[in-house]
Amino acid sequence: MQKSASQIAMLLEGKVFGNPDVIISGPSKIEEGKPGTISFLGNPKYAHYIYDTLASAVLVSKDFVPERPLKATLISVENVYASLAILMEHFSPKIANEKIISSTSIIDPTVHIGDEVSIDDYVIIKANVRIGSRSKIFAQVYIGNNVHIGDNVLIYPGVKIYRDCVIGNNCVIHANAVIGSDGFGFGKDDSGGYKKIAQLGNVVIEDDVEIGSNTVIDRASIGSTMIKKGVKLDNLIQVGHNVTIGENTVIAAQTGIAGSTKIGPNCLIGGQVGFKGHIDIAEGTMIQAQSGIGSNIKHENTKWYGSPAIDFNNYLKSYAYFRKFPEIVQQMRKQEIELDRLKQEIKNFADKTKKEIR
Amino acid sequence: MQKSASQIAMLLEGKVFGNPDVIISGPSKIEEGKPGTISFLGNPKYAHYIYDTLASAVLVSKDFVPERPLKATLISVENVYASLAILMEHFSPKIANEKIISSTSIIDPTVHIGDEVSIDDYVIIKANVRIGSRSKIFAQVYIGNNVHIGDNVLIYPGVKIYRDCVIGNNCVIHANAVIGSDGFGFGKDDSGGYKKIAQLGNVVIEDDVEIGSNTVIDRASIGSTMIKKGVKLDNLIQVGHNVTIGENTVIAAQTGIAGSTKIGPNCLIGGQVGFKGHIDIAEGTMIQAQSGIGSNIKHENTKWYGSPAIDFNNYLKSYAYFRKFPEIVQQMRKQEIELDRLKQEIKNFADKTKKEIR
Amino acid sequence: MQKSASQIAMLLEGKVFGNPDVIISGPSKIEEGKPGTISFLGNPKYAHYIYDTLASAVLVSKDFVPERPLKATLISVENVYASLAILMEHFSPKIANEKIISSTSIIDPTVHIGDEVSIDDYVIIKANVRIGSRSKIFAQVYIGNNVHIGDNVLIYPGVKIYRDCVIGNNCVIHANAVIGSDGFGFGKDDSGGYKKIAQLGNVVIEDDVEIGSNTVIDRASIGSTMIKKGVKLDNLIQVGHNVTIGENTVIAAQTGIAGSTKIGPNCLIGGQVGFKGHIDIAEGTMIQAQSGIGSNIKHENTKWYGSPAIDFNNYLKSYAYFRKFPEIVQQMRKQEIELDRLKQEIKNFADKTKKEIR
Repeated sequence: MQKSASQIAMLLEGKVFGNPDVIISGPSKIEEGKPGTISFLGNPKYAHYIYDTLASAVLVSKDFVPERPLKATLISVENVYASLAILMEHFSPKIANEKIISSTSIIDPTVHIGDEVSIDDYVIIKANVRIGSRSKIFAQVYIGNNVHIGDNVLIYPGVKIYRDCVIGNNCVIHANAVIGSDGFGFGKDDSGGYKKIAQLGNVVIEDDVEIGSNTVIDRASIGSTMIKKGVKLDNLIQVGHNVTIGENTVIAAQTGIAGSTKIGPNCLIGGQVGFKGHIDIAEGTMIQAQSGIGSNIKHENTKWYGSPAIDFNNYLKSYAYFRKFPEIVQQMRKQEIELDRLKQEIKNFADKTKKEIR
Repeated sequence: MQKSASQIAMLLEGKVFGNPDVIISGPSKIEEGKPGTISFLGNPKYAHYIYDTLASAVLVSKDFVPERPLKATLISVENVYASLAILMEHFSPKIANEKIISSTSIIDPTVHIGDEVSIDDYVIIKANVRIGSRSKIFAQVYIGNNVHIGDNVLIYPGVKIYRDCVIGNNCVIHANAVIGSDGFGFGKDDSGGYKKIAQLGNVVIEDDVEIGSNTVIDRASIGSTMIKKGVKLDNLIQVGHNVTIGENTVIAAQTGIAGSTKIGPNCLIGGQVGFKGHIDIAEGTMIQAQSGIGSNIKHENTKWYGSPAIDFNNYLKSYAYFRKFPEIVQQMRKQEIELDRLKQEIKNFADKTKKEIR
Repeated sequence: MQKSASQIAMLLEGKVFGNPDVIISGPSKIEEGKPGTISFLGNPKYAHYIYDTLASAVLVSKDFVPERPLKATLISVENVYASLAILMEHFSPKIANEKIISSTSIIDPTVHIGDEVSIDDYVIIKANVRIGSRSKIFAQVYIGNNVHIGDNVLIYPGVKIYRDCVIGNNCVIHANAVIGSDGFGFGKDDSGGYKKIAQLGNVVIEDDVEIGSNTVIDRASIGSTMIKKGVKLDNLIQVGHNVTIGENTVIAAQTGIAGSTKIGPNCLIGGQVGFKGHIDIAEGTMIQAQSGIGSNIKHENTKWYGSPAIDFNNYLKSYAYFRKFPEIVQQMRKQEIELDRLKQEIKNFADKTKKEIR
């Protein structure tokens, strides 16, 4: 696909600065820009690359003002990442709409499959499953009894979906993710061992959710584990039974959420964060990577850090002192010595004064 | 399945308070209780829901005393979670005992399969494998040469078991878990690179073990990685080569255990905990989520927190001061100023006294 | 395979102390040594086992000097782990070079397969893939369009490799790992939701790389996620889009690396470490398990600990005071009381002196 800078600007509702006729055939990174490609400047850290990049064009924010002349044509837009998303979509190889159902897939006769669905090799689809239109099931996927899958869903190779789960429209589930395995529920028995508590619920994933590779979402013991509309989960995340994740919340890789915790909408959760079970997290909460959340977060739009997590800025302040702990203790020791010296001085002085007065 | 409250009480050896004839057809959560269902009150945090729940019955501890009247029939039992386990089992859909061995599974002629085993589609079972009676192998599982699997074992879709591993009776292994992959062992070579050390051992999983989705247990370099009777491992856990996990130890999601570490029996390990290699952890150790265990734990039944972990309560005390670190340092600065002021005061006073005395 | 101690010494270029004719048929752990086996002493922690081990021979460092007589034949070598690697390789069961391409594998006609390749059951290989000589693809693997795989590569069951990725020679990829899934890239849209940014790049894995089970390496948004020659990745690791990992860097389990971060060569990274995105880590950096790396590391061969990480030794010093925080604060309180007492004493003394002088 080839497009001129001016055509791209039109597509993105942006403005061109420089040669509008330069021809673009794909994207490149600004530090590795090549002629005939378009780069982008999202993170200001990379701004210095823009003056020397070999990319023919660069997507920039409308607020960007070059500090010196540059060769690349600039296309300035309202929101660089949103525009980049549109542009990358244009350069993206289309997943062929094969409408093919492989003869090596094993599909129960009770399954209902919508229009223009493709199902690749060695897929297994059990009884009473429904799959919406234009969804694509890649190879070696397993879909258990009674699962419902919406329209325009992509399920990558090796994903396993246990019985009774529900997947909304426009979802993407990456390779080897597991949806609906048993929650981690055991009751202690009299012998000191544990007895499994049957996990009778399911997982409900609403529309527009993306789930990363090897992420696991456990089924509810009773009721549903809920992943609401627009949630984005990175790779290797653990979602315990009966958890709810609110709309448009974004969670980075390797975070774990223990059972029955409810995370509000529009949260931004870093990687390797841990949530205790049975807590509630308010809307818009931001959590720094590796934090441990051990209790409810009640106020919206707050930022947290540490294990257990405290206010983000307070953590940084306390940690700054933690780094200087040896100096602080040394300073305290100095004060102690000084204090002892003073006591002695006062005593000496008092003794002397007494003598002199006498 | 429908049962009256009195029938359920009989099953659980509990007592009924309220209408014994109310009919129950399934479980529900206490905060989402529905007529015709039975809820439970395990965590006291949820006690306030019991007065308004629409559930027809609620399973409570024999110690529970209502603070005011309530509509639901109560069934009081010795141990709520153990009773819940029994009850949920009753409501659990039975996995059909199909005794079917799929014609699409590829089973080596040397494999020995017990009675009433079911093997689903696209399973691969290599030479000299033995599978006990009433075990169920779900679709797309891989079982390498010489693996032995006991009776009543459930192996969910996509599990991969490398050669020579042993799985006891009544085990459950969830989707896409990996058992017996190579331990992470390399020797530095002269060129600055690493040479792989062949991993010749296996994994031995004893009876009554449950293993979560996408959990990995590496084979021993020499000998066996041991998962003892009754161990419960959550999802996405890493168990390194030559690790031993003692009987009835329970480990939450995303914890990692480095090579050759031995964890005693009856431990409770939180999520995202890390264990250094080559250490020993005493029986009954409790470890808070996200802790890092860097040395032996010798005394039984102790509780730990932090990275590196220290006594649980001491960590909380130290962390309480960590949170107040800016105030503490400010207080120290104040003392310093006060100390300087005192020194000056003494000096002034001494000068003055001298003059006056003179 | 049976070998005498003297034959083993010759193989390892080591020296024999004790009976050179003792026959060895396999390896054992020193604490579980059995007659007819050879153990090794790598970690000095295990040195005390050498005097009582039943192993017929023990591999030791040339620096090892026994403190008292012992029964086992010693074979002393320059580098115990490197020698062990060679020895274990000798005892390792050879993976049969079956040169078989299963009729149940589904291989696109455009695929090019080298000499002596084996492809097991239910493997799927898409268009334009190339596989080098003597590589072995285990069962249930998925290899997407245009993937190139080198010579002598082992790909274990259930691995999923997305389109366009490149795997070098002599690589090992363990079960259910995912290579080339989409990077976690979204642009905020006007409605408060997120729009996916298409991920157009790939993953390039160079020669001699080992990748653990259930590890995930995301494809670049643009360009390549790079895993350089000789890198060793343990299980359950997350590698974000556009990351580069330098030559011979070794990373332990469950570590996560956010997008666009560049890790230098010869680094040693512990388990459960987290790296922020868009940072650079110098050659030879050592990072303690569970650390969080939030900014560039510029100097080579430094050692880090903490979240956020600081100098390793400084962290230990600060943490030693953190453990004593309650005592330190108590000491400060004592000083405060002492200071108040001194102030009062001076005041009293001054009052008294004034009176006496008057």
